[in-house]
Amino acid sequence: MEFLSAENVEKLELKKFDIKLRYGENSHEQVYIFGKPQFEVLHEGKQLSYNNILDAEAAWVLARNLTTIGGGAAVIKHQTPCGVAYLKNESEDGKIEAIKLSIQADSESSYGGILATSFPFTLEMAKALNTYLEVIVAPEFEPQAVEFLSKKKVRLIKPKEYTPYAGKVAFGSLVLSERRFEGEPELLFGTPIDIKDVKFALIVVEAVKSNAIVIVKDGVTVGIGGGQPSRKRSAWIATTLAGNNAKDAIAASDAFFPFTDGLEILINAGVKCVVAPLGSIRDEEVLSFAREKGVTFYKSPIRLFRH
Amino acid sequence: MEFLSAENVEKLELKKFDIKLRYGENSHEQVYIFGKPQFEVLHEGKQLSYNNILDAEAAWVLARNLTTIGGGAAVIKHQTPCGVAYLKNESEDGKIEAIKLSIQADSESSYGGILATSFPFTLEMAKALNTYLEVIVAPEFEPQAVEFLSKKKVRLIKPKEYTPYAGKVAFGSLVLSERRFEGEPELLFGTPIDIKDVKFALIVVEAVKSNAIVIVKDGVTVGIGGGQPSRKRSAWIATTLAGNNAKDAIAASDAFFPFTDGLEILINAGVKCVVAPLGSIRDEEVLSFAREKGVTFYKSPIRLFRH
Repeated sequence: MEFLSAENVEKLELKKFDIKLRYGENSHEQVYIFGKPQFEVLHEGKQLSYNNILDAEAAWVLARNLTTIGGGAAVIKHQTPCGVAYLKNESEDGKIEAIKLSIQADSESSYGGILATSFPFTLEMAKALNTYLEVIVAPEFEPQAVEFLSKKKVRLIKPKEYTPYAGKVAFGSLVLSERRFEGEPELLFGTPIDIKDVKFALIVVEAVKSNAIVIVKDGVTVGIGGGQPSRKRSAWIATTLAGNNAKDAIAASDAFFPFTDGLEILINAGVKCVVAPLGSIRDEEVLSFAREKGVTFYKSPIRLFRH
Repeated sequence: MEFLSAENVEKLELKKFDIKLRYGENSHEQVYIFGKPQFEVLHEGKQLSYNNILDAEAAWVLARNLTTIGGGAAVIKHQTPCGVAYLKNESEDGKIEAIKLSIQADSESSYGGILATSFPFTLEMAKALNTYLEVIVAPEFEPQAVEFLSKKKVRLIKPKEYTPYAGKVAFGSLVLSERRFEGEPELLFGTPIDIKDVKFALIVVEAVKSNAIVIVKDGVTVGIGGGQPSRKRSAWIATTLAGNNAKDAIAASDAFFPFTDGLEILINAGVKCVVAPLGSIRDEEVLSFAREKGVTFYKSPIRLFRH
């Protein structure tokens, strides 16, 4: 069942769903679910919470988007990614490597995080985990993996097919937006790079709360800046977290650069390729600046705000 | 009409609301509203967008919470506060001062922001604005203020009475949490400070996406860190933004300090008073650390996660 369809677009009827959750966003707050959440809970080592479900969805939408470039793994904390890695090869070892890289990408934050993989979760993967995770989300779980993990406090979630929406309750109503990620990045100037890396940076930046700046290198995130009221500030956060890893890396921005200042921070940190949508009244100034500095610039086909 | 009530707690029936919005979260995405949003649009200098409504609600809930300490003004960007000030006196000048302080608190970010005031918005306030704002939200607008502002691109929103919820669409269902802010901060040790300042810090931190750290001084925010997967990182952002203003300031944390590291960043920056909930297995270590460092510690009555 889809949340929104031709039948219910004029009137949404959502029945209360009978599930026991720990509590609302905080322990003194009640929680409710309306409609049937499109997942199966395979193991609930600790009762699911409101935040677990929202984190699991954030992680799953990101992991599902990664399938368009062959798959990968993502660790989410508080509905925002802290580490993401794409698959370099489709072997079991390649998948375990992607999981480990997504955890290590921000080892300070991944403890207690939510892991989502675009691929089935096996016993070998479960055995390879070396940090505490609140939830694991995967399209399938090997029965032996469930058995192995059922001794732990983790929750295992297997999503069903559904269409994700960006929707929130505000002013006593439900405000709902499509969440569509489509189109191809376009090289505007500079030395072309592996398009998979450009797409990867965009997939991650779509999952980060705006203003979002994401720096990736060798198929792994090295700096994620977001949740800030200024793009320049997100660039500062992302480059500071990346440190030396920003050198020759790729940076994605979820919206256009309104000024050259954010871009300058990225370039000064060593970023060699930038992907961002256009649309600023200063586009020409921003693009000239990037061209002069010798970086490669890809145009994102769409703006990628998520709040 | 309340979003949730005894009558509809078993079954939510929401009719599509007929309002023309610019577009969804991004321009290629469709937007829908279900149920009747509890506000009046007094002026729409530019068509309202999905993001405007969500930003306006974020700003309004914060401004409404400020009434518990006598009122104030808040500027929001991307659903997170960038500058907030409480009222030092209830005169017209005092209110204009609070508006100006909320804008100046983060002048880099407030351009194009959403302003909400807890008090009626007058012509004098409209004339005193010296930055571009996307939306102004207030409990009342003086007709002359509406007339003056109707020549500008700003949207004016007057909320009605309603109960705010933290609710999001996830996995094809609506996950809803109460949003309750209650209780009194309790002094655990150190020199007592004006309780109004402690409450102010908590009201602002409730509105910041977690992990949230907010530094306030003289009734104005001087550093807001949030949207991060680690509390330590938010402390780093808040103290960096505060700079010298962190000296003798008050810091609020939306959840407990899991380690002493985040607290140490705040204390090293000069913060003299900390307010945070407890609940960590390392509470004793964290509190001992704060006591040794000579800071005042207030216990927040509740955790204040908002994502």
